[in-house]
Amino acid sequence: MTPTRTSSPVLIVGTGLLGTSVGLGLRRLGVDVLLRDASPVALGLAADYGAGRIATAPTAAEAAPEDVPRIVVVCVPPDVAGQVAAEQLQAWPDAIVTDVTSVKAAPLAEIRAAGIDISRYVGSHPMAGRETGGPLAGRADLFVGRPWVIATHETTTVAALQEVEGLALDLGASIETMTAEEHDDAVALISHVPQLLSTAMAERLLDDEQGAAALAGGGLRDVTRIAASDPTLWSQILAATGPRVARILRLLAADLEGLADALDDIEQPGARRIVAEHMLAGNEGVARIPGKHGTRRTFVSVTVMLDDTPGQLALLFKDIGDAEINVEDFAFEHSPGANLGLASIAVVPEVRQKLLDKLDETGWRVAQ
Amino acid sequence: MTPTRTSSPVLIVGTGLLGTSVGLGLRRLGVDVLLRDASPVALGLAADYGAGRIATAPTAAEAAPEDVPRIVVVCVPPDVAGQVAAEQLQAWPDAIVTDVTSVKAAPLAEIRAAGIDISRYVGSHPMAGRETGGPLAGRADLFVGRPWVIATHETTTVAALQEVEGLALDLGASIETMTAEEHDDAVALISHVPQLLSTAMAERLLDDEQGAAALAGGGLRDVTRIAASDPTLWSQILAATGPRVARILRLLAADLEGLADALDDIEQPGARRIVAEHMLAGNEGVARIPGKHGTRRTFVSVTVMLDDTPGQLALLFKDIGDAEINVEDFAFEHSPGANLGLASIAVVPEVRQKLLDKLDETGWRVAQ
Repeated sequence: MTPTRTSSPVLIVGTGLLGTSVGLGLRRLGVDVLLRDASPVALGLAADYGAGRIATAPTAAEAAPEDVPRIVVVCVPPDVAGQVAAEQLQAWPDAIVTDVTSVKAAPLAEIRAAGIDISRYVGSHPMAGRETGGPLAGRADLFVGRPWVIATHETTTVAALQEVEGLALDLGASIETMTAEEHDDAVALISHVPQLLSTAMAERLLDDEQGAAALAGGGLRDVTRIAASDPTLWSQILAATGPRVARILRLLAADLEGLADALDDIEQPGARRIVAEHMLAGNEGVARIPGKHGTRRTFVSVTVMLDDTPGQLALLFKDIGDAEINVEDFAFEHSPGANLGLASIAVVPEVRQKLLDKLDETGWRVAQ
Repeated sequence: MTPTRTSSPVLIVGTGLLGTSVGLGLRRLGVDVLLRDASPVALGLAADYGAGRIATAPTAAEAAPEDVPRIVVVCVPPDVAGQVAAEQLQAWPDAIVTDVTSVKAAPLAEIRAAGIDISRYVGSHPMAGRETGGPLAGRADLFVGRPWVIATHETTTVAALQEVEGLALDLGASIETMTAEEHDDAVALISHVPQLLSTAMAERLLDDEQGAAALAGGGLRDVTRIAASDPTLWSQILAATGPRVARILRLLAADLEGLADALDDIEQPGARRIVAEHMLAGNEGVARIPGKHGTRRTFVSVTVMLDDTPGQLALLFKDIGDAEINVEDFAFEHSPGANLGLASIAVVPEVRQKLLDKLDETGWRVAQ
């Protein structure tokens, strides 16, 4: 078994999607996992599914030594996360306690209000999820390659921080450290506002008496996919970041009104320019989202047309390699019915000209 | 060669993404395709790529008999589509002329304004596209399984309608017939408004000084994907449906303001209910979008937990088959680290209870 950073045993309180996924991921590494849930059905399913063993003692005073957790991971809905974390801090006086709730300022305030020592508490938020919930949606690899926000506060101990970092790293996540306030500002923008925009768009389809939705393409599907999210969960999440989200929604509403004014009077001087400027700003904004592998989208692509004969790709790569050009990404496409294949070569912008020169020199046909 | 509904030769005017895709699709069926484009480079690439042969004569008077098209497909940008279609109607007095522009009322008005007989003109709009443009993005299968709107007007002849229907069917599309006005209302809702919402969301990321975008999950990526679309093309498209789009944007802006009011005062009675009601309406709206295969999402799923032993799936399907239950969709998931597999069985709602009864009777473990 690989050595782990996480100390055994771990107690998971709440065996829904996230709790079960944490359990499955830790069990795979050989960590001893104890499970608790208010619902005996969810608890039994998670244990059967392999997420850990069912905890029997609710506090350190009642537990056998091997059942006293070193770290407690609270995976309950947002409206009770603070209260449950405070209870766990009191139940296990030597354990580090974290939670995985998608809001961070409100639970911290609730724990503070309980008047207990919070140096053993570290808030966290793995940026991972699925459209379906419940223990059976759990996956051991849910957190792999995903950001895991760790929200420290002024009395967080280094030991507590390191324990939670170890947990996140063991589960394959990458760590982002910030305050609870910074976290909530960030998720309002990148998660809560997109959720409500998607919802508002989907809601407009209820006015559609012509059945226009039958013509829907990929764009509408993408924009509205998360409109299928759980209303109860989201009402709780949004209650915790309300004014942060409201501020951005008002900016968006103003932008949409401005666009509507321009579109209502599109033949007026300047109206088309307003539309084009919004489109350009949108292009720029979307480019700020990192690509799949956590890199910003800063590659440029060059497309080469290849004859449909064997060995062409090998020759192309030999020529590129001879010039010591590093290919960041590569795609090859052969449209059914076409005589040619298209090789798309992504490189960092600095070497684009070098690549073009080499392709020219070696006689490859570059698509403009 | 399969017999085609489309008459040879076909003239494609404009060899960008759509024109080249129409050409590749028709060439695969053995249809004789002529190509024209204002750009010699785009024209040469499309011809080399296999989309057809380069047309030499611009009008019937100058063309050899075998180079006189039976149908002309205008695939040029929206702002010139009407004008080019009118020119083609005059250049080829016996040809049916269609265009594939994403707006339909404006081109029709332009053709009407030219004062010519429009009984040979039929507007159309294949609901297909890609994020990249140009001839080399063309694909013979671009239209397969996609809706193809055919916009008739009061003097469209049956012969013209049938010719364009044949073209759409030959390319694998499914036909939706409506008026130009109905079409433009539909695309404003399902395409132009989602585009601007996605753009407005992406634009908000420009305010992000903390680098919150680095935490972006699948939701933000989906909502903003089409914000990367071409500003020039979209400025033209939006100019043609301006007031239709503006009306819906104003409704959206009002919804966002209402949500912002509720979120700013989330502890007030009724505020959480407003948020939850929007979320529920969004759930309902997104359910109106047909699934991949053109069916509405009306299936219900039942999840069965399977032991990790060979032959379990075969046994499960035998039991379901014995009950004469039709499985509409099926997914099997085995989370790494889990002891169990999960079989998700989708059926029409009417047989859900029958399936549950059969599973119970045969001793399968159903996940709640």
